[in-house]
Amino acid sequence: MNAIDIINKTKKSIQLTDDEIRWLVDSYTDGEIPDYQMSAWLMAVRLNGLTEQETLSLTYAMRDSGDIMRLNVGLTADKHSTGGVGDKTSFIIGPIAASCGVCVAKMSGRGLGHTGGTIDKLESINGFRTQLSVEEFEDILRKTGFAIISQSEDLCPADKKMYDLRNATGTVDSIPLIAASIMSKKLAVNADCLVLDVKYGSGAFMKTKKDAEKLAALMEKIGKGAEKRCKAEVTDMDSPLGMNIGNALEIAEAIEVLQGKCKGRLYDTSIELAADILELAGKGDNQQCRKLAEESVASGKALDVLRRTIMLQGGDPAVCDDVSLLPQARCSYEVRAMQDMKILRIDSEEIGMTSLLLGAGRLKKDDHVDATAGIVMHIQPGDTVSTGDKLMTLYSTLCSDFSDAAVRALNAIDFESVNCHKPLT
Amino acid sequence: MNAIDIINKTKKSIQLTDDEIRWLVDSYTDGEIPDYQMSAWLMAVRLNGLTEQETLSLTYAMRDSGDIMRLNVGLTADKHSTGGVGDKTSFIIGPIAASCGVCVAKMSGRGLGHTGGTIDKLESINGFRTQLSVEEFEDILRKTGFAIISQSEDLCPADKKMYDLRNATGTVDSIPLIAASIMSKKLAVNADCLVLDVKYGSGAFMKTKKDAEKLAALMEKIGKGAEKRCKAEVTDMDSPLGMNIGNALEIAEAIEVLQGKCKGRLYDTSIELAADILELAGKGDNQQCRKLAEESVASGKALDVLRRTIMLQGGDPAVCDDVSLLPQARCSYEVRAMQDMKILRIDSEEIGMTSLLLGAGRLKKDDHVDATAGIVMHIQPGDTVSTGDKLMTLYSTLCSDFSDAAVRALNAIDFESVNCHKPLT
Repeated sequence: MNAIDIINKTKKSIQLTDDEIRWLVDSYTDGEIPDYQMSAWLMAVRLNGLTEQETLSLTYAMRDSGDIMRLNVGLTADKHSTGGVGDKTSFIIGPIAASCGVCVAKMSGRGLGHTGGTIDKLESINGFRTQLSVEEFEDILRKTGFAIISQSEDLCPADKKMYDLRNATGTVDSIPLIAASIMSKKLAVNADCLVLDVKYGSGAFMKTKKDAEKLAALMEKIGKGAEKRCKAEVTDMDSPLGMNIGNALEIAEAIEVLQGKCKGRLYDTSIELAADILELAGKGDNQQCRKLAEESVASGKALDVLRRTIMLQGGDPAVCDDVSLLPQARCSYEVRAMQDMKILRIDSEEIGMTSLLLGAGRLKKDDHVDATAGIVMHIQPGDTVSTGDKLMTLYSTLCSDFSDAAVRALNAIDFESVNCHKPLT
Repeated sequence: MNAIDIINKTKKSIQLTDDEIRWLVDSYTDGEIPDYQMSAWLMAVRLNGLTEQETLSLTYAMRDSGDIMRLNVGLTADKHSTGGVGDKTSFIIGPIAASCGVCVAKMSGRGLGHTGGTIDKLESINGFRTQLSVEEFEDILRKTGFAIISQSEDLCPADKKMYDLRNATGTVDSIPLIAASIMSKKLAVNADCLVLDVKYGSGAFMKTKKDAEKLAALMEKIGKGAEKRCKAEVTDMDSPLGMNIGNALEIAEAIEVLQGKCKGRLYDTSIELAADILELAGKGDNQQCRKLAEESVASGKALDVLRRTIMLQGGDPAVCDDVSLLPQARCSYEVRAMQDMKILRIDSEEIGMTSLLLGAGRLKKDDHVDATAGIVMHIQPGDTVSTGDKLMTLYSTLCSDFSDAAVRALNAIDFESVNCHKPLT
């Protein structure tokens, strides 16, 4: 086998064999195939696609490029979201499922983007450690049923190397490559049940519902092909999920949901995904599982799991009872309505960019993330506001000049002018 | 500007500006853009194509990546063939045009393939030097009107670097990239008139006439866009051109054409291309130029140019009067007909592979070429032969086991069985 023949096949849309794909992935991971051949192949995949069989082969070869986790804690579940603006469902769903007897063992990364990744968000809790040994991880899982660990370098080295290359060569936006990248990592973490939350819309990686459905179906097939119980949901990310965007701000909102103080779309989505996990784990039909999830929040059992997990991972559990103990921004700025208006839509992408400007996210791998930075929204689509009403509050510790962020935040709002007061007739 | 934006545009078939293409080529040549980004862009070009405007921009940017030759010898012409099996027209056309008063200043390479490149073929003449200074080159051109120099490293460094990368990444077979590669070198050599011989068929790079026409039209546009007098011909390479394939063997056949001993397709093609050069140089209409070319051969004037050029470039001019002075192979093997047959077709590609097996070509850059190796064909499509008749003679000095080559040579012949003798009734 040689790389040029493999590139030529994909270039001509000739299906590769499982052996060819394994050889390609292994040789690239070992450094025998240079980056310039891999990037040509990745661009051929981006433009010609891969068959379903090829995508399965690619995913399993990537999974097998490193260690595979084998936890000794009984039935485990994992949840993955393709990411969006204000998505803090992991901190809600994990505790709910754990409180219903399903172990949620999550491995997460820091990631690039509008806000930090899951690990960055958790680290806004004072003292919280995510660099755990496998033994510590198992121990916490046995005690609370929910734990989160930082991504290990030993899992999926092929994905790490390919992802960096894709980032530098315009080959990120390929459904088979996205599916293989996500699923190879999930399969290396090796939970028994897997719920996938594929988001679409302005703030999401998949811009259209159709693409999100394609990705969801493909990932479900990959999961089932690897003999996992697997379910993929397609959810809307056109508007941010919940009212808070930013690292500590999102932890605060997740806690408020578990305190039973927040309902709405964030709560509904969390219950739906938690019910999916419970259903996959054999806790009943979807209706029954939804009820279990709701009761877990209402009774405070889920919050209790989170409290104990935070404590066992070194953080201050008191934040679960008083979110003002989370780090607070030094500066804030209120964005107010310049006219009477009806809110039609809040663009996730623009809100995400605002959050990035405030310091909540990172553009480059080594950028520092401001745990306190972010946005609290006071409006939702459908609301009508009067001139001078608060639309959003922007927070930051590092950035004290809010002018760019405020412009960007206003840009995010689609509205129509209205008269809030009765016209004089 | 950055490489990822440029890759993304081509990936989405958005036309690049002239500035973007120049920046890409310059930055890649300077080593600022890594191979893995360039190869992703090249694959995007291979699969999505380039517009005509982009192809022109790319060619001119590549031309400008190094020196541009400025010869002080009056009006000059250059001829390029996209290569095929048995193509020795350069050694015929150059002397014809020179004898009619048009300077043919040719820069050639060694190249990879079935036989050596133009330089390898010339070096089969004892003593022939192609590593000339520009002053020597001009001096010979002034004296005889025809000279051939080895490719300079200072011309088109962008093409050299991109071509090596394309070879390693499955991105050779792209019409805009082929056109830009050929034309950037030709425009850096900077002759006033340019005749392009685009070959199609089994032994050629372009397998179909349609693709050859596309490439020819594109190269003509690029040439004219650079204010050159430029004409592209599309010629058939389905059967080898002439009867001899191999380095010294092709020089011998070219000399025999100039001696007036060989007519047929090789002679006709040579006269046609020489007439094109003369016409571009303003020597009359095509009819008149064809006549000039024919007279140049018939009178021996063209052979006289070759004789003097060989002498001035250090070779033995006596080969022009006695081709047996060219190096002779130590071993030979006669391939004979196993049955009575009518020859339908001789496959160029297979003949080329036979020639490679005999040692006439090179697969890798550093392979040694056997000047004496090759094939003399004794048949042409349409011929009828009897059992035992000679079909081809294979020659080699390095290889004394002809079994593989003979099988390959027979494979090249498409035939139908016939009875050469009257059947007994």
